[in-house]
Amino acid sequence: MNILDVIKKKRDGNALSEQEIRWAIDAYTAGDVRDYQAAALLMAVFINGLDDRELWAWTSAMLQSGSTVDLSGLKGPKVDKHSTGGVGDKISIPLAPLAAAIGVNVPMISGRGLGHTGGTLDKLESIPGFDTRLSIDAFVRTVREVGVAMIGQTGELAPADRKLYALRDVTATVESIPLICASIMSKKLAEGIDGLVLDVKTGSGAFMKTLNDSRKLARTLVGIGKSAGVRTVALITNMNQPLGRFVGNALEVRESIDILRGQGPDDTTELTLTLAGYMAYVGGLVDDAGQGRALAQAALADGRALEKFRQMVAAQHGDPRVADDPDVMASAAHRKEVVADKSGFVAAIDTVAVGMAGVLLGGGRLAKEDPIDPAVGMEVFKTVGDPVKKGDVLLEIHYNDDKRLEEAVGMILGAYQVAETPPEKQPLIYEVIE
Amino acid sequence: MNILDVIKKKRDGNALSEQEIRWAIDAYTAGDVRDYQAAALLMAVFINGLDDRELWAWTSAMLQSGSTVDLSGLKGPKVDKHSTGGVGDKISIPLAPLAAAIGVNVPMISGRGLGHTGGTLDKLESIPGFDTRLSIDAFVRTVREVGVAMIGQTGELAPADRKLYALRDVTATVESIPLICASIMSKKLAEGIDGLVLDVKTGSGAFMKTLNDSRKLARTLVGIGKSAGVRTVALITNMNQPLGRFVGNALEVRESIDILRGQGPDDTTELTLTLAGYMAYVGGLVDDAGQGRALAQAALADGRALEKFRQMVAAQHGDPRVADDPDVMASAAHRKEVVADKSGFVAAIDTVAVGMAGVLLGGGRLAKEDPIDPAVGMEVFKTVGDPVKKGDVLLEIHYNDDKRLEEAVGMILGAYQVAETPPEKQPLIYEVIE
Repeated sequence: MNILDVIKKKRDGNALSEQEIRWAIDAYTAGDVRDYQAAALLMAVFINGLDDRELWAWTSAMLQSGSTVDLSGLKGPKVDKHSTGGVGDKISIPLAPLAAAIGVNVPMISGRGLGHTGGTLDKLESIPGFDTRLSIDAFVRTVREVGVAMIGQTGELAPADRKLYALRDVTATVESIPLICASIMSKKLAEGIDGLVLDVKTGSGAFMKTLNDSRKLARTLVGIGKSAGVRTVALITNMNQPLGRFVGNALEVRESIDILRGQGPDDTTELTLTLAGYMAYVGGLVDDAGQGRALAQAALADGRALEKFRQMVAAQHGDPRVADDPDVMASAAHRKEVVADKSGFVAAIDTVAVGMAGVLLGGGRLAKEDPIDPAVGMEVFKTVGDPVKKGDVLLEIHYNDDKRLEEAVGMILGAYQVAETPPEKQPLIYEVIE
Repeated sequence: MNILDVIKKKRDGNALSEQEIRWAIDAYTAGDVRDYQAAALLMAVFINGLDDRELWAWTSAMLQSGSTVDLSGLKGPKVDKHSTGGVGDKISIPLAPLAAAIGVNVPMISGRGLGHTGGTLDKLESIPGFDTRLSIDAFVRTVREVGVAMIGQTGELAPADRKLYALRDVTATVESIPLICASIMSKKLAEGIDGLVLDVKTGSGAFMKTLNDSRKLARTLVGIGKSAGVRTVALITNMNQPLGRFVGNALEVRESIDILRGQGPDDTTELTLTLAGYMAYVGGLVDDAGQGRALAQAALADGRALEKFRQMVAAQHGDPRVADDPDVMASAAHRKEVVADKSGFVAAIDTVAVGMAGVLLGGGRLAKEDPIDPAVGMEVFKTVGDPVKKGDVLLEIHYNDDKRLEEAVGMILGAYQVAETPPEKQPLIYEVIE
């Protein structure tokens, strides 16, 4: 085969064969196809798209470029959750042990924060000693023994995705639904799961700003899951404001522990329970997600979920006292209240701006190699729909370094829209796509 | 400026500003934009196109990436001709001295053969000693003294085009009308001309197979010429069969000398005279191309054109005896007749196949670094519309090495379509676009 023929075919709007896609991805991973040729192909795919058959071939070629986690010896279903990312989205941290507590094996491989969105790995590393870099063997052993483990991407899984993703990043070919979906799903399918629940965010803080685009993304992800024979469900959920009460790495672990104690905020608790219900459902433990939710609620109430979290932290070399005493984690030296400059109702929050304010203060990163301060973050007091009076605290910043504090305060103030009338109420969960 | 923003804009189907185009091309030429980024941009341009304003910005950015030949001191118009390439298209060789003989300065920069089409430089180098690598200074001096010089592309002119063209070649982004036109015109405009005649080929042996596509290409080229303030005319001419009687480097120089002696075949003589007429016209020497053609006919008839050719060969260190004795050039050791296997009329000739048969025999090249045998080629006896009897010689091969002779014979036989009825007569010149 010849890479120029493959590029031409996609350039001219034709569908590639499974063989052509597999050959091109293998040849690029092996270094036989050059970066500039892969870049031309990616741009042709970006503009002309991939049909369902091509998309599955692309995903499975990336999946098969590396090894797959072998969880075949485990009893019970193996189910993961993936979120497309948002501000304050710590759900994986309470959800994974909660699902494990009701009998689902959760082999979760997560990412780091970049830009306005945080990453599960960064949050977990706020726990003293917590190791997100287990070998695949240790990962499998932990899932077998505890029922859950949470680690970062390794070089062994879907190496083609890693190489292609790095190239997309520098060639303006990131924001393509098929390429995004193939990237997500090749990594998730490499976990050796038989069920997957997707949390597709929609709104101002999400990658997809409109419900329609989010629906398209969700359907494409679910379609790939089906092609792979993995039971896949996607929930489209609200990201028009930060999720829950806290934003920031250690602060989000605190909130996660609150949720596991049954003392979390309504929205994050509700989303955690619902997603756990769907994980039980796609894992075949229950007949519908409602039954799964009931199981999860019981496991929160009787402390099994918190206990599972404690076991997971210990198994991954973290300090298990965190489950009872979150103060073992770093906290910020200073706080700064951001107060409303007029009265009315919170009409909207520019969620990206809130996330970027956290980045300014050192709580996130702009480039992959930036260090982060786990203690930095925000406590959100007023969310969309809340009445506010001039002088009310909208949000409290936790910071260590005041160099860019005023800038962050300005961004947050600018992010809050206060109007005279309350906005229309928005759902937490828009729809479920199976 | 940021290359990702520029790529995104074109990727999403928006028009780039002149500043963005100039910056991107300069940054790529300087090495600040990487090959893979330029490849992504080229693919986005390939698929989404460039409007007239963008196209002129792209062309002039490539033009201004290098120096321009300074012909400002010359008396008389400075006019070049460019052909989009075909099989047997030796027209530049008689045309350039003919136009010079009637008072047009012809600073011609040509290319080499690749694939089924030959190149003017390779043909000229069949003349013993002929030097196509003059410095720009020597080039200008020759045009000043003789009225004509014919050289190859140099690194000083439009270096951005050279770098981009090499990248297009390996990223399947060659066949784009705007990119082709910008490439051609940036090099031509760098010659410092004030008039340009374009011979846009159409048909089986041309880059553009249909009249419609050829028209689009011609109009785009003429549009760029106008934007540059250069009087530009395009003729759309027939390439449904090899042009003239000979195909092959030394053989085409022989035919060129025949034309200059007034003894050439009808089609190549006619095309040479017509193009010379248009060169005089765009050069402002005459009021219409017909008057220019009459001047050219007189210069052929009285030997001035052949004398100009002799002077040019001598000025470029070639053996000027070639003008009177073409046998100073190499000729092939063997000949092989290809005969008709049935009677009827030549209905069509697959011109690419004829060109590629010449490549097989060593008369052309598949890769830029391949050596060529100047003596190899073909004499065409039967062309489209001719009646043939079984056993008639269609074409005679001139060869030195018989390794791939049978394959070449098979290709040529397959290229000739013989039908029971004569085909519709095709014009030599389809239309003129000003």
